[in-house]
This record gives sequence, structure tokens and C-alpha cells, in this order.
Amino acid sequence: MFDPRDLPSANELLEAIQYFSQQGWSPATSTNYSARSATPGHIIISRSGVDKARFQLSDLIMTNLEGEVLPPFQGPGIKPSAETEIHTHLYRLFPQIGCVLHTHSVLGTTLSLEHAAEGQLRFAGYEILKGLEGNATHDMEERLPIVANSQSMPDIIAAMESYLRLPLQIHGFLIAGHGLYTWGRDVASAKRHIETFEFLFECTQVMRRR
Amino acid sequence: MFDPRDLPSANELLEAIQYFSQQGWSPATSTNYSARSATPGHIIISRSGVDKARFQLSDLIMTNLEGEVLPPFQGPGIKPSAETEIHTHLYRLFPQIGCVLHTHSVLGTTLSLEHAAEGQLRFAGYEILKGLEGNATHDMEERLPIVANSQSMPDIIAAMESYLRLPLQIHGFLIAGHGLYTWGRDVASAKRHIETFEFLFECTQVMRRR
Amino acid sequence: MFDPRDLPSANELLEAIQYFSQQGWSPATSTNYSARSATPGHIIISRSGVDKARFQLSDLIMTNLEGEVLPPFQGPGIKPSAETEIHTHLYRLFPQIGCVLHTHSVLGTTLSLEHAAEGQLRFAGYEILKGLEGNATHDMEERLPIVANSQSMPDIIAAMESYLRLPLQIHGFLIAGHGLYTWGRDVASAKRHIETFEFLFECTQVMRRR
Amino acid sequence: MFDPRDLPSANELLEAIQYFSQQGWSPATSTNYSARSATPGHIIISRSGVDKARFQLSDLIMTNLEGEVLPPFQGPGIKPSAETEIHTHLYRLFPQIGCVLHTHSVLGTTLSLEHAAEGQLRFAGYEILKGLEGNATHDMEERLPIVANSQSMPDIIAAMESYLRLPLQIHGFLIAGHGLYTWGRDVASAKRHIETFEFLFECTQVMRRR
Repeated sequence: MFDPRDLPSANELLEAIQYFSQQGWSPATSTNYSARSATPGHIIISRSGVDKARFQLSDLIMTNLEGEVLPPFQGPGIKPSAETEIHTHLYRLFPQIGCVLHTHSVLGTTLSLEHAAEGQLRFAGYEILKGLEGNATHDMEERLPIVANSQSMPDIIAAMESYLRLPLQIHGFLIAGHGLYTWGRDVASAKRHIETFEFLFECTQVMRRR
Repeated sequence: MFDPRDLPSANELLEAIQYFSQQGWSPATSTNYSARSATPGHIIISRSGVDKARFQLSDLIMTNLEGEVLPPFQGPGIKPSAETEIHTHLYRLFPQIGCVLHTHSVLGTTLSLEHAAEGQLRFAGYEILKGLEGNATHDMEERLPIVANSQSMPDIIAAMESYLRLPLQIHGFLIAGHGLYTWGRDVASAKRHIETFEFLFECTQVMRRR
Repeated sequence: MFDPRDLPSANELLEAIQYFSQQGWSPATSTNYSARSATPGHIIISRSGVDKARFQLSDLIMTNLEGEVLPPFQGPGIKPSAETEIHTHLYRLFPQIGCVLHTHSVLGTTLSLEHAAEGQLRFAGYEILKGLEGNATHDMEERLPIVANSQSMPDIIAAMESYLRLPLQIHGFLIAGHGLYTWGRDVASAKRHIETFEFLFECTQVMRRR
Repeated sequence: MFDPRDLPSANELLEAIQYFSQQGWSPATSTNYSARSATPGHIIISRSGVDKARFQLSDLIMTNLEGEVLPPFQGPGIKPSAETEIHTHLYRLFPQIGCVLHTHSVLGTTLSLEHAAEGQLRFAGYEILKGLEGNATHDMEERLPIVANSQSMPDIIAAMESYLRLPLQIHGFLIAGHGLYTWGRDVASAKRHIETFEFLFECTQVMRRR
């Protein structure tokens, strides 16, 4: 059902979703994922409530930047994820972003709770930091903000406002007890950011256990 | 051998069983799984003693709510799991339940032993709590009762009696040193509960190790 | 190349070997595995030096109970594992044994080193204990002896002698820093023992970390 | 595009790369791998910037020992990994080496940071030490040097100089916060070294957590 110009992105997004599921980063029906369409103002996004271990191409739908489902994707039970609002907010704010990914791993959950009071995680001295776009060395410090969880998306967006100023200094954020949001110019770049942050979470967890 | 009306549930149950095996939640020949048949008073249930890594559709059999194997599933060596009694008890008690799943993970085993004296695990503040039917927010507390292990199923059922009162306030229970029982209106819902609780076990284990 | 009567055992052994490799219980070219042939005095055994992630049916050879490779399995570079002596010793001692399996997991290695001075691991109160042949309840204690490692197989066998008396009270043993040996009446039973012990190792490790 | 004489090595290298990715030892686009060509002075090496979970035969290119890409592998965006210099240095120094592998696991990262001040990891008493070429017993001590990380390859090579003297006493080295380099006479041997060291990292981590 996708425009032939969008099919490569849709397939790449599907492959990333399946990969994250295999890593255990999308338990139950949590997490959501999107990519910008070739049509301005449209995005491809995972629909709500699907078991990610069984996710298929037909579970991707299209919305506009107001989060409204576009034809022919409308239908009974077809709705975008509750957190579509965060995705569309990021696309409206940052024209250079082509993909937004949200995973929900054990360590993304626990580290975000344990460091909620500090409001951020800091990572320094790791070679893997070069996996984040624009970082050319391990010899730097990366900050990942943590905001409080809420069932109201505007609350989460408001809490992120001060961080989401141009030029973009961060590569993602954590919602406490809920998981990671990151983005990139395309699916490959955003997927690399997910893998980089999840690896940094594991290193952080191992190091603190000393 | 299944009625065509039961084949979708049987296949979905099989897929869930294979998924749990891949996650390492069904070591050796432990665990058992069932779903309600389209025929009132009948259930589909895993037969006893099968290596879950090799489980096939032909390892699912049918019983009535007294746990008696129904034709044409009878045969030498074909018997339902020893814990069928727990499954049938739950189906008799709760008409709204369509699936009962029992996994046996390392953390389900160790947390149930370590918290046996308290008689329960408590989970609060996790977004994943919304994976349990009826929970609409992370901002609540979910209780998972723990009962003592026994080789007598009536003992386990008796220990659960006070929790199994309508309206159902819990989504499952742990048997100490033995693992998790959960249920749902259908296979997808019960599978989501397994994944949610196993994820909560992992978060709990990581958090207590601080 | 196998006698048709041995092909089912050989294939079941191959499947178990591939399963253990996927679990990470056979790093590098470690571990070895065998099953009794339908021909009295003959066994099927993994040959030495093969990467278990690439193990194939053609990597299984046949020896007699003196560990000599039988035709047509002889050939340049075809030799049984160095530890064949332990396998053949067990088959000679216990007629009821049809399969001997040796895995080399991280926790089998570390727990055997940490408890070497005590000479054993003890497991009690776990439902999974019923995975070991003859155990009918969780309410018992299972002992797993630990012997010192040696590059001389007769030394290892001598250290085990006092444990290997009929009636057989144990289901396996650990070699310190080296891993687990277990056995069973057939491949399925021995595989179940491996899974049971590895699960018990994980529970033990989690519980001691409290 | 490979010379038929190089195709077996290229395929074996590809299989190792895919195996390491499945183990989680090559997050994001980290890590690089090479094997000596049948043509003297040429090597097969992974090209830069590829997601290792999607790595294919066409992502292997050929260079000379100065790290220059050879025809017909040249092309836009086709470049060898930044760390090719380390690979070619090792091949020039040690004629007996046929393969160089570099993984980037969580524990390779964290242990190398935690032991950076000591300048090495020591492993003793593990049976798995026999996985390293030339080791005939567990009853020995293996040293794995750790050098400081740098974005300048000559700095890393200079830091390794004192260790890389003939006769070669070590089987690899760690770069702090960055991961493991090891080598072998062929791909199978170097792959066995990676698995051996990663297994030793896991044992070391478990033992220190006591």
C-alpha cells in the first residue's frame, strides 16, 4: 500500500523493528517507530498495540504531522501509537530528522529511574560514542536528558522543550521508567543511535556494579 | 486433528510456546500452556514431558474441564501436564479467561523464593505496567501473589483461593521456586502478560542489585 | 555413514549439540558429546577440535569402549576428543547409561572454581530438580560433586571414583574451571539434565548476588 | 569479485562477522576484520561504516599492506576501516598471521577501562585457555595487554610496540574503552581466540562480582 518511493524506508524501518524485538528492547506491545515519507508532511509510523515479535509491513501506517491517519490506512482498530505526538513534534521542529525510534529496554527503564533526580545520564571516554552522529572522538562527554514519565504527551514534550533548541546538542532522551527516544537523518542513522545508547546503558550498568 | 475453529488458537498457542522457549523461560520439560476451545467446556493444553525447544502442534491435546483427555487425543504416553488442575480450576472460576500460561524463568524462580516470606512482589512506577489488561497508567501499584510450592495441586489452589475472588484484582501469581502463572481473555493478551511480568522481574532484579 | 539403527541417535545428538552452542555453553572448540550405538560396545562421539557453531553430522564418529576410532570413520585428522576416556569409563561402569554430555558454560566454570574447596554444589527447594531422572519433588537436596581439573584423564576419573558407585546417587559432576559432565538413559534424558543443571547454575548465581 | 582462491577465506570471514554480530560483540558500525589473501601483500578487509547485522560478502574489500584499496574494489564511499593501519601493521610484522579480528563487546569495553591502570588482564586456571594457540594446559597464566585509546592509529601501534616482539608471547590486546584485537594463522584460529577471550571476560566479570 506504500508509495514505491516510501517502500525502501518502510522496509528498512520494519527490519529495524524486528531487530530491536530480537534484542529484547520492545517487550509486550510497547515502543513505537517512524520515518519521514517522501511526501512532505507525511510520516510512516508503527500502529498501536501490535506484538513487536510478530510485526509486519502491514502494521506500518501513514499519518500527517498532526497525527491523523491518511487514506488508505484508515480502518477499524487502525490507530497510530499514543505517542505519535512526540514523533510529529520532533519532525515539525527538526527538518533534518528523517527517523524517530523509541525502544523500551530493561536498562533504559532502570537507569532512567535511578538517575531521574539528576535529570540526565552522562557518558564519557567510550569509543562507541562515535556511533552518535557528529562525534569524532571518545574523548568527550555526551549527555542524555531524563524527563518524568506522564500519560499526557504534552507534559513530556513540555519537559523536553529546553533541550530541543537549535542547534541540536543531544541525540535523544529518556522518559523515566519508560525508555529511550532517539532520531537520525535516516533509519540507518537512528538505528545506530539506538544501538549506541543501549550499549552505553550496558557499560554503565556493568561499571556501577563494581 | 483440531476442529477448524480451534486451529487459529492452537497455532497462536504454539507460536507463544516457541517464543517462550527461545527466551529461556521453559527449561528442560517444565512449563505448561492452554487455551479455551470453541467447544464449551473443552480446552487445548500442552501435553506433559515434551522438550519445549522441540514442541510441535502435535504436542497439543484437548481435555475437558475435569482434565480428562478427549478423543482422538487419547493414546499411550499421551497425558496432560500434572498441573492441568490449576488450568481447569482457573477456567471454571473465570468465564472471561481464554488462555492460561505458565513459564519457569530463572528470575521467576529466584524472586519468588527471595520474596516468599512477604507473600508477594509489588511493582510501581513502570510504564510497562500498562501491558497488563486494564491498567491505564504507570502511576499505580500491581501486586503479584507468591504461594508456597507443593507437589499437590489442590494445596496450591487452596493457597490461591483468597486471591481468586471476583472481581479479579490480580493478573497472575508465582509459585515459590517454580515460576509464573498468568492468564488473559485470549492467547495474545496472556502472552503480553507473560512478557510484562518477565520484564518487571528483570527490572526488579537490576534495581535491587544497586 | 551411520548404521540406519544409529541414525536417529546421531541426529538427536547433533540437534542437542547445536542447541547447546546457541545457548553459549560450548565456546571455542570446547565440549564433547556421545551416545551409545545399537551395536554393543560401540559409541557415537563428537570428534575433536570442531567449532560447535559449525558442527555437522559428519563431525560425529564411532569408537569402541577403548576409545579406538572404528572404520569407516578413520582418517587423517579424525580423532576423538581428548576426553573420550571419561565417556568410555562411564559407559563401561553403567550399563543403563545411553548418552554422556559435557558442556562448558561461564557459570559451570566460575561456580566450579568458587566451590572447588567444598568439593560440591548443593541445590534444594527448586521445582526444576524434577528435571533430573528419578526426582519426584522439589523438597530434596541434590549434590553435584566438583573434582580438580587435570590434563590427565585418569586423574579426573580417579577423583570421581568414590562418587561413581552403584546405585548411582548423582546425575553428573563438575570439573573445576572446566565445566559439567552429565548422562542419561538416552539423548533426551541427558539433554534435560544439562538444561536442568545450567538453570540451577543461573539460579545459584542470582541468589548469591543478593 | 574475489579471486577463486580467496573466496573460501572471504566466506569464512563473513560467517565469523555474522556470528560476532549475533553475539552482540559488534554494536552500531563498530569493529573490523581481515584475512590474508592468497596473493602476497594483499588482504581482504571489512569496509568502513557498515551495520554488522546486515554485513554481506560485498562489504568485504581488498587492500595492499599500505591500506590502499585495490581494483576493482575502489569506488565512491568504499573505504577500508579507519583501523586498517593496525591490521596491516600486524600482517607486516608477523608472517605467520593469516587473520586479524577486532570485536567491541560490553565486557571488552568495561574490563579494559577498569584495568587500564594495570595495563593488562591476567587469566589463570581456566580450561578454556587451551583455546589459545600453543597453550596445552589450564595451569598457566595468560596476559592480555591493555593500551590507551586514541583516534591516532600510530599512537596505538606505538603503545603496543614493546609487546609485539618475536617470539610472540601474547594472543591479542585490548584498547581501553574500545575492545579486543586478536589474530591467528587462519580465520578459524582467530575466531577461536575471540571466543576464548570473550568467554574469559565473562568469567572474570562473574568472579569479581562475588
